[in-house]
Amino acid sequence: MPITHIAWAPDHGVRFLDQTLLPTEERFLEVYTVEEVAEAIRVLRVRGAPLIGVAAAMGATLSARNIAAGTAPAAALAAALAACDYLESTRPTAVNLAWALARMRGAARQSRGEGLHAALLAEAEAIWQEDQAMCERIGAAGLPLIPDGALVLTHCNAGALATGGIGTALAPIYHAHALGRRIRVIADETRPLLQGSRLTAWELTNAGIPTTVIADNMAASRLRLGDVTCVIVGADRIAANGDVANKIGTYGVALAAREHGVPFYVAAPRSTFDAATADGQAIPIEERAPEEVRRVGPAAGRASIWNPAFDVTPAALIRGYITDAGLLTLDQLSRLAD
Amino acid sequence: MPITHIAWAPDHGVRFLDQTLLPTEERFLEVYTVEEVAEAIRVLRVRGAPLIGVAAAMGATLSARNIAAGTAPAAALAAALAACDYLESTRPTAVNLAWALARMRGAARQSRGEGLHAALLAEAEAIWQEDQAMCERIGAAGLPLIPDGALVLTHCNAGALATGGIGTALAPIYHAHALGRRIRVIADETRPLLQGSRLTAWELTNAGIPTTVIADNMAASRLRLGDVTCVIVGADRIAANGDVANKIGTYGVALAAREHGVPFYVAAPRSTFDAATADGQAIPIEERAPEEVRRVGPAAGRASIWNPAFDVTPAALIRGYITDAGLLTLDQLSRLAD
Repeated sequence: MPITHIAWAPDHGVRFLDQTLLPTEERFLEVYTVEEVAEAIRVLRVRGAPLIGVAAAMGATLSARNIAAGTAPAAALAAALAACDYLESTRPTAVNLAWALARMRGAARQSRGEGLHAALLAEAEAIWQEDQAMCERIGAAGLPLIPDGALVLTHCNAGALATGGIGTALAPIYHAHALGRRIRVIADETRPLLQGSRLTAWELTNAGIPTTVIADNMAASRLRLGDVTCVIVGADRIAANGDVANKIGTYGVALAAREHGVPFYVAAPRSTFDAATADGQAIPIEERAPEEVRRVGPAAGRASIWNPAFDVTPAALIRGYITDAGLLTLDQLSRLAD
Repeated sequence: MPITHIAWAPDHGVRFLDQTLLPTEERFLEVYTVEEVAEAIRVLRVRGAPLIGVAAAMGATLSARNIAAGTAPAAALAAALAACDYLESTRPTAVNLAWALARMRGAARQSRGEGLHAALLAEAEAIWQEDQAMCERIGAAGLPLIPDGALVLTHCNAGALATGGIGTALAPIYHAHALGRRIRVIADETRPLLQGSRLTAWELTNAGIPTTVIADNMAASRLRLGDVTCVIVGADRIAANGDVANKIGTYGVALAAREHGVPFYVAAPRSTFDAATADGQAIPIEERAPEEVRRVGPAAGRASIWNPAFDVTPAALIRGYITDAGLLTLDQLSRLAD
């Protein structure tokens, strides 16, 4: 099982692993203010769309914890709602952040400010447990794809560190490992931010799963060797036609997997399906700061940088979707979206 | 035109750019001993198979320069031959190194130690000029592929910095630029050693050619945009059936180029053709130290690393071979090898 990297701290604080320091340092922080949680989300101490939702929900409870004794319920409620607004402002893109904080606001309003802290703690705990359950269902759905002796290639980090549970793409791997199946993983390092070598390799080897890191440009050669069982990656958005936006580099891996007959799977909760987006061309691709590329690979000063954070893998390259509603074909996925 | 990065120093020394410091620092070294040239080759201050041959030939002249006045011709000859052996020991793989030093030994023996320095200078100069001419012919052969407005994607560095002239893959680009054609280049950063972002971007922008650096895993998405005119890469060995060994990552770029209908060319001198190797499977692929990958992307301590230096691109993915004997199809290439 992977490490527990987020938890309640004693006396109703929030405890989490500072992911910006991985793998060099494994430092846990225990925080007791909304501001500290917001800062952690903003600077990516906690990252991964599902995890951000969980962390923000836990952080929202701190406003009620810290309210002065004797504060009027209406004032306590107003403070909690303001804390939710503040937490939501930390990152603009992740859907899970807004979704989790909407639930926290609902719980706060329902309490009318009476027993507010307990109500918020209960809702945050529910969000966290639902996230864990989602991960477990994805793990179970993908388990048949990972027999004893399997070798799985993955890209970026869609693991425990990206969720409040055991991850999405890595969940079936943890399930197979727990059953005693001997499995190995190849982790693309995932430039420019190296989530594969920094995070995926760290959490898998911590769990005792043999892992080999490769530079992204080695994936095609590795798949050609013929011994990779399957590729499993996460997803940031799945369009109505089954096209998948995921971390940049996913598309090239999918092309190489098809060339060498290696089945390519996408693991994601149903909330990642976006029936309102027709296809991959309609998914906006965020371009990030050139410094992300330049920091590790110093381009000559006069060169420009192109740094898209995501790419789109066409549905035709995807063998199946490993979801919390089971292992789905494109047809089944489409019916789910109807 | 690209920078002159290797030359004779005043008073018959050797002057070269220390490529290990690029692009952060542009430092030229002027050296006057065989040992200094050997060290520069060993630690990659000069690198690239053609350039290593040129540098070693120039370095071999230093033994004769430094011989004490009045030394017997036989002793001077023995010293020159020993210098060639020493220079050849610096790197085991590059064919050009052994080839260039064999020529230097021949010139030394032919002189019988009389007028040795002049004989060695003449041979080193010939090797260098032949390398420059080879680059120019490759540039001319590839020129028709690069019309005004062309956008060329390349991988690694097969440029001026890898040769004694204007490069192999980049030679047609320099020719087109010299003719006033407006061209742009996309340079894969080329993990793990970043020859693309460190060297290719540096030499092209120095020459005034607009260059965009991308992480290797962005190449497939970039080719999908539909505006790339062609891909041109170098080669470390070309098998009899046209399969090409080149820097790791080349194969994945070739797969993506085919997927999007972008023609993929390999630029190399005829000396790179190896008729004795039947196909790509017969080409030994060097695996290098894991530290190369770990240095930039810190894998978790318990993870292993796979670090092949080269991959093989099948002939079927290659539109043509840009050589010093012209732009050749696979058929023409095969006839050349007969």
